[in-house]
Amino acid sequence: MDSMTIIAVASIITAGLTIAIGALGPALGEGKAVATALTSLAQQPDASATITRTLFVGLAMIESTAIYCFVVSMILIFANPFWNHFIAQTAGQ
Amino acid sequence: MDSMTIIAVASIITAGLTIAIGALGPALGEGKAVATALTSLAQQPDASATITRTLFVGLAMIESTAIYCFVVSMILIFANPFWNHFIAQTAGQ
Amino acid sequence: MDSMTIIAVASIITAGLTIAIGALGPALGEGKAVATALTSLAQQPDASATITRTLFVGLAMIESTAIYCFVVSMILIFANPFWNHFIAQTAGQ
Amino acid sequence: MDSMTIIAVASIITAGLTIAIGALGPALGEGKAVATALTSLAQQPDASATITRTLFVGLAMIESTAIYCFVVSMILIFANPFWNHFIAQTAGQ
Amino acid sequence: MDSMTIIAVASIITAGLTIAIGALGPALGEGKAVATALTSLAQQPDASATITRTLFVGLAMIESTAIYCFVVSMILIFANPFWNHFIAQTAGQ
Amino acid sequence: MDSMTIIAVASIITAGLTIAIGALGPALGEGKAVATALTSLAQQPDASATITRTLFVGLAMIESTAIYCFVVSMILIFANPFWNHFIAQTAGQ
Amino acid sequence: MDSMTIIAVASIITAGLTIAIGALGPALGEGKAVATALTSLAQQPDASATITRTLFVGLAMIESTAIYCFVVSMILIFANPFWNHFIAQTAGQ
Amino acid sequence: MDSMTIIAVASIITAGLTIAIGALGPALGEGKAVATALTSLAQQPDASATITRTLFVGLAMIESTAIYCFVVSMILIFANPFWNHFIAQTAGQ
Amino acid sequence: MDSMTIIAVASIITAGLTIAIGALGPALGEGKAVATALTSLAQQPDASATITRTLFVGLAMIESTAIYCFVVSMILIFANPFWNHFIAQTAGQ
Amino acid sequence: MDSMTIIAVASIITAGLTIAIGALGPALGEGKAVATALTSLAQQPDASATITRTLFVGLAMIESTAIYCFVVSMILIFANPFWNHFIAQTAGQ
Amino acid sequence: MDSMTIIAVASIITAGLTIAIGALGPALGEGKAVATALTSLAQQPDASATITRTLFVGLAMIESTAIYCFVVSMILIFANPFWNHFIAQTAGQ
Amino acid sequence: MDSMTIIAVASIITAGLTIAIGALGPALGEGKAVATALTSLAQQPDASATITRTLFVGLAMIESTAIYCFVVSMILIFANPFWNHFIAQTAGQ
Amino acid sequence: MDSMTIIAVASIITAGLTIAIGALGPALGEGKAVATALTSLAQQPDASATITRTLFVGLAMIESTAIYCFVVSMILIFANPFWNHFIAQTAGQ
Amino acid sequence: MDSMTIIAVASIITAGLTIAIGALGPALGEGKAVATALTSLAQQPDASATITRTLFVGLAMIESTAIYCFVVSMILIFANPFWNHFIAQTAGQ
Repeated sequence: MDSMTIIAVASIITAGLTIAIGALGPALGEGKAVATALTSLAQQPDASATITRTLFVGLAMIESTAIYCFVVSMILIFANPFWNHFIAQTAGQ
Repeated sequence: MDSMTIIAVASIITAGLTIAIGALGPALGEGKAVATALTSLAQQPDASATITRTLFVGLAMIESTAIYCFVVSMILIFANPFWNHFIAQTAGQ
Repeated sequence: MDSMTIIAVASIITAGLTIAIGALGPALGEGKAVATALTSLAQQPDASATITRTLFVGLAMIESTAIYCFVVSMILIFANPFWNHFIAQTAGQ
Repeated sequence: MDSMTIIAVASIITAGLTIAIGALGPALGEGKAVATALTSLAQQPDASATITRTLFVGLAMIESTAIYCFVVSMILIFANPFWNHFIAQTAGQ
Repeated sequence: MDSMTIIAVASIITAGLTIAIGALGPALGEGKAVATALTSLAQQPDASATITRTLFVGLAMIESTAIYCFVVSMILIFANPFWNHFIAQTAGQ
Repeated sequence: MDSMTIIAVASIITAGLTIAIGALGPALGEGKAVATALTSLAQQPDASATITRTLFVGLAMIESTAIYCFVVSMILIFANPFWNHFIAQTAGQ
Repeated sequence: MDSMTIIAVASIITAGLTIAIGALGPALGEGKAVATALTSLAQQPDASATITRTLFVGLAMIESTAIYCFVVSMILIFANPFWNHFIAQTAGQ
Repeated sequence: MDSMTIIAVASIITAGLTIAIGALGPALGEGKAVATALTSLAQQPDASATITRTLFVGLAMIESTAIYCFVVSMILIFANPFWNHFIAQTAGQ
Repeated sequence: MDSMTIIAVASIITAGLTIAIGALGPALGEGKAVATALTSLAQQPDASATITRTLFVGLAMIESTAIYCFVVSMILIFANPFWNHFIAQTAGQ
Repeated sequence: MDSMTIIAVASIITAGLTIAIGALGPALGEGKAVATALTSLAQQPDASATITRTLFVGLAMIESTAIYCFVVSMILIFANPFWNHFIAQTAGQ
Repeated sequence: MDSMTIIAVASIITAGLTIAIGALGPALGEGKAVATALTSLAQQPDASATITRTLFVGLAMIESTAIYCFVVSMILIFANPFWNHFIAQTAGQ
Repeated sequence: MDSMTIIAVASIITAGLTIAIGALGPALGEGKAVATALTSLAQQPDASATITRTLFVGLAMIESTAIYCFVVSMILIFANPFWNHFIAQTAGQ
Repeated sequence: MDSMTIIAVASIITAGLTIAIGALGPALGEGKAVATALTSLAQQPDASATITRTLFVGLAMIESTAIYCFVVSMILIFANPFWNHFIAQTAGQ
Repeated sequence: MDSMTIIAVASIITAGLTIAIGALGPALGEGKAVATALTSLAQQPDASATITRTLFVGLAMIESTAIYCFVVSMILIFANPFWNHFIAQTAGQ
């Protein structure tokens, strides 16, 4: 196995696992947030504007942790600096 | 084992595990969200429009984390840049 | 072990595990959703139409994550691009 | 170990684990759904028709995830395309 | 180790684990279903006919997932197509 | 290690683990069922006949999953077709 | 390592783990059953005869799963057919 | 490593783990049983005789699963038939 | 590594793990029992004699499972029959 | 494998896992915080200003732990001192 | 690696893990016991003498399981019979 | 692999895992603290000053454990004494 | 690797893991104890003296299990008898 | 790999894991303690002095277990006696 193959394999496996594991927490957290939002709406329909606004801000915060994982996953697949280094090295050889 | 086989094996295994693990969280989160939506509807049928709308926005947010995993999984199978690199390399040989 | 055997083994194992692990979350999530739907129906039989409709939309969303896993599993068994590449390569040899 | 043995072993192990792990979620989900159905029936016997109908639709959805696993398991044992490929290859040799 | 020994070992281990793991979920699910059936009977003895009937349908659905595992386990021990293939191959040698 | 030793070892380990893991679920499920039966009896002594009958049917269903495991375990020890095949092969040598 | 040593080691380890893991479920299940029996007795002392009788039947069912494990464990130590086969084989040599 | 050393090591490790894992379940189960016994006594001091008697029968049943493990552990240390076989074999050499 | 070293290492590791794992269950079980004893005392100070007596019997039963582990641990360190066998063998050489 | 390949592989895998595992806790913690914020808003709409302000401070604190992980992940990919050291070393060679 | 090094390493690792794992259960159990003692004191300050006395007896019982682990840990470090045997053997050489 | 590569790899992997695992506890703990702060504010808006102050002190304490992990992680990447030792050694060679 | 290196490595790893794992239980146990102390103080401020005193005794007991781990950890680093033995042996060589 | 490299690697990995695992328990414990402190303050604002004081003492006790881990971690990085021994040995060579 030459260096490029190893880098490619490591990038593929890590990219997949990063988003797979990283989606677990946000999905559960958002599920909980949405669930209580619905309970609150049923309990106090008059506060619907405040509840919806707070929910969206909260979802954005939680989603951001999933986005971090997605960004790292995309970087590893499409803009991997280590891969680029070896590509450049091979090309310059 | 040559490089292409290793890349292929890593892509196959990672693609499967990514969507398998990545489906766990969203499924549970959506289950929780839908469940409380139903409880809320039974408790406050009059707020049905607001509850349904909030539920759909929430489900979309949660589903998005599953979509991230599905996208990464599809990229690894059908548009894998590392695989393409080695295919190009082999063809150019 | 030649390349084709390795690809085949990886595809078989991944296809099975993908749907096996991927069925866990949706099954539990749908169980929770159906359970609360029944509780809600018993509590508010008059809202039966809204509850049933919301339940079906929710189940469809949750089932979609299981479908993603099933699709990936089927692709790996019957339309595996890596397998096809090596088949073509062998045939063209 | 020749290729056919490896494919056979991988198919056997995967077929068993797929249905074993895949039966876990649906069994628990259905148990929860049936349990709340019974609670709801005891609480609101008059809504028995609606509850039973919703329960059966729900059970069908949950059972479907177990069916996916069973189908993949059966495909791996009785209609395995990778196994057939190697059988054909051996026969044509 | 020749091919037949490996196939036999894999079949033995998989057959055992399949039914062992596969019995976990149904047993817990049925326990939950029976438990709530008893609670419901104590709470609403008049609905005993409906509760019992729904319980039996539910138990049948849950038991079905255990049956799937048992069937796969039996197939692997007594009607294993891979084993039969190698037996036939050895006999025809 | 010759084939017979490997088959024997695999059968011993699998037989033990099958019944050990397979006893976990039914024992917990039956414990839950018996526990609620006792609660129900204390709450509604008049429904004692129906509760007892439903309990016994439920216990039989749950015990059946333990029986499956015990049967597979016994088959592996005393009526193992793979072991018999190799015994016959050795005898016929 | 000759065959007899391997069989002996496998039997020792399996015998121990079988009863160790197999005692976990029944002990917890019986603990739950006894606990609710005591709660029920305190709540409804008049139904003491029915509760005690149902408890004993239930404990017997749960204990049976522990007995299965103990029986397999004893068979592996004192009446192991594989061990006996090799003893006979060695003696007849 | 000769056969006797391997048998001894396997016996030592298995004997320890058997009682260690096997003590987990009974200890938790008995803790639960004793705990509810105390709650019941505080709630219904008049039923003290029945509660105490039922508790002791229950504890005996739960303790029995710990005893099974202890018995197997002692057999493996002090009356191990496999060890005795090899001792006899060595002595008769 | 000669036989005596292996036996010694196995005994040391097993002795430690046996009491370490074996202390987990009893400590939690006793914690639960003591906790409910205190709740019961606060709720029904008049039944203090019965509660204390039952608590002590229960603690003794739970502690017994820890004692089993401690006994096995001590036997393995100070009265290990396998170690003694090899000591005797070495001395008699 | 030369040093640079190993450093690159370790950096890729660690960068992915760091943000993946590190996103789990904050996502769940924020989900819980947002959920109770919504409950509180529904219960006490008048305190909406204080609740929202406290929520945002809290979310910032929780998000900070995710940021730590993201920062370490980015450092490992784009500003890795160990990688730079070896790059410099190779260039200076 | 000679015998003494192996014994030393095994003793060091086991001594540490024994007390580390062994401290888990008692700490949690005592935490639970102390917690309910405080609840009981707040609920029934008049029974303070009985509660405190029972708490101390209970804590002593729970602590005893931690002491067992500490004793085994200290024996392994400072009075290890296996280590002493090899020291004596080396000295007598 | 020379010493420097090994040290670098170990530092990279440890730095990532330290902050990743170390962020789990504080994020969950802070989530719980913020959540109850919001509940308390909704329940007793008049005590808002005391609650906010206590919350901030508490968050600081919890955050401190995350800071410890971040500090160790940064030390390992940017001020690693072991790495510096080997750099100095190489430079002085 | 010579003996001293192995002993040193084992001591370092064990010392760290001992206090790390050993801090888990006491921290959670003390958290629970302090939490209920605060609840009790809010519920019964008059019993503040008794509650505080009992809390401190309890915390001391729980902390003691953490101290055991810290002591073993310090012994392994600074007063390790096995390390001292080898140091003495090397010095005397 | 020479001794110094091994010691360095072991120290780096252990130092990181010690504080990472060791921060888990205290963070959760403190989270629980702070949470109930806030609940208590909202419920009984008059006891605010006692509650705050008890909270700070409790947090100090819990933080102490995190400090133990941090101290061990720092000792391993900056004052490691084993590392110093080998440094001294190398220098004296």
